[in-house]
Amino acid sequence: MRNIKLVLEYDGANYCGWQIQKSHKAAPRMRSGQAKSQSRPAISIQESIEKVLSKILQEKIRLNASGRTDAGVHALAQVANFNTNSRIELKRLQRALNALLPDDISVIKAEDALPDFHSRFNAESKLYRYTILNRPYRSVFLKNRAYFYPYPLDLKLMQNESRVLLGKHDFSSFRASGSSAKDSIRTIKKLKITRAGDFIHIHIEAEGFLYNMVRNIVGTLIEIGRGKFAKGSLKKILQARNRRNAGPTVPACGLYLERVKYIKR
Amino acid sequence: MRNIKLVLEYDGANYCGWQIQKSHKAAPRMRSGQAKSQSRPAISIQESIEKVLSKILQEKIRLNASGRTDAGVHALAQVANFNTNSRIELKRLQRALNALLPDDISVIKAEDALPDFHSRFNAESKLYRYTILNRPYRSVFLKNRAYFYPYPLDLKLMQNESRVLLGKHDFSSFRASGSSAKDSIRTIKKLKITRAGDFIHIHIEAEGFLYNMVRNIVGTLIEIGRGKFAKGSLKKILQARNRRNAGPTVPACGLYLERVKYIKR
Repeated sequence: MRNIKLVLEYDGANYCGWQIQKSHKAAPRMRSGQAKSQSRPAISIQESIEKVLSKILQEKIRLNASGRTDAGVHALAQVANFNTNSRIELKRLQRALNALLPDDISVIKAEDALPDFHSRFNAESKLYRYTILNRPYRSVFLKNRAYFYPYPLDLKLMQNESRVLLGKHDFSSFRASGSSAKDSIRTIKKLKITRAGDFIHIHIEAEGFLYNMVRNIVGTLIEIGRGKFAKGSLKKILQARNRRNAGPTVPACGLYLERVKYIKR
Repeated sequence: MRNIKLVLEYDGANYCGWQIQKSHKAAPRMRSGQAKSQSRPAISIQESIEKVLSKILQEKIRLNASGRTDAGVHALAQVANFNTNSRIELKRLQRALNALLPDDISVIKAEDALPDFHSRFNAESKLYRYTILNRPYRSVFLKNRAYFYPYPLDLKLMQNESRVLLGKHDFSSFRASGSSAKDSIRTIKKLKITRAGDFIHIHIEAEGFLYNMVRNIVGTLIEIGRGKFAKGSLKKILQARNRRNAGPTVPACGLYLERVKYIKR
């Protein structure tokens, strides 16, 4: 039995997420900026790909992804693997997939993996990027691709405050109420906030994340950057272990799964 | 009477163009790559903006643009001006416009112009960019934003051949059949072909262009780059003054009106 690993790029705007999920309570949204809200469609990225894979390979295919991404969240390099009896040539498989998949899902790599490789269980860490368009006027080309925040943000303060999040902590303050995880202890390996022209990028690397954790952290950092929370407040918010103390959940459109790291074997 | 100048960014994908146009004969399309074709909607960018302007200013507004852009063509900095009796503050006008305009049109600047300024008549030259995504797999984030061409292109050859287009010529070979212009003499001031990663950008600057001229030139350059036309053929195509000798019309999605130059006064 072959084990094939796919690297996938997708625009999450038109999907209910990687997988069909039980509906979570709607997160509190930032008031400012972002476009008119849209009703989320019911189709998942996973089922869209499985349907096409099953058609190409003429057998029922089940995909394992490195993790779920939520409705509206994008991926630059999501990893998913599946088992098949097919002996199809990989280049041909990739071409067939890209020809049959919708325009907003693309297979950027297809390769044979070791028989026991599992996209989720073997993932060492995941890197997310949250992108904020921070200028007075929106960009038509970034609709659903970045979070438009038109007011000034104190980047230095955001960078300094964010340091307390590094390492192993109870992230209850940044955990969505609908979350089903057993505990709220997670380890943030890296957190980097950079400005590039009109963009602010927040890069976060961790082994695993709580539901809405990145978007709740970013929402809190924005409140800090615009001066709503005083210096030193992020430490207090983290220690409070109470979702109510933190900032709002920023929209999914700015969030990108950028990379999944695996231990080289 | 005030004369206000707007600089506009728009994603042309959902518009029939800057202006409602008489339907031109459908241009021959490249066979490869590009996504499923879409039916073009009937609304123009001009009327979308005029409607909102008239609402904000409570008077009938007529916009003069630097020139029309076709269905599906984008603008990074289209220029349009209009007369008004309103004394509205410019920042407030810009904010009101961006709040009421659809997500795919954005006002990036609003300023008072000299009373006799006219976006079209005073334009010295226009710069267009055509962007090709040249790699084996498409990008989900560039759907309708670049022309996906997956086969290798000889950039050096394209660059060398393109030189014959510089200067004043009869561009009949690159003129769409539906064109209504009186003559086909135009002057190309600059033509630059660059590669940046997976992208090929073709920059063309001219005082004026014939209908579909940029897209017909790019379609011909691609045929050269993929080896369909021999070395020296672009000169012959230009001299033939016959549309049939040139390559096909590339899709509108890769075309951006990048800048309009005005004489400093």
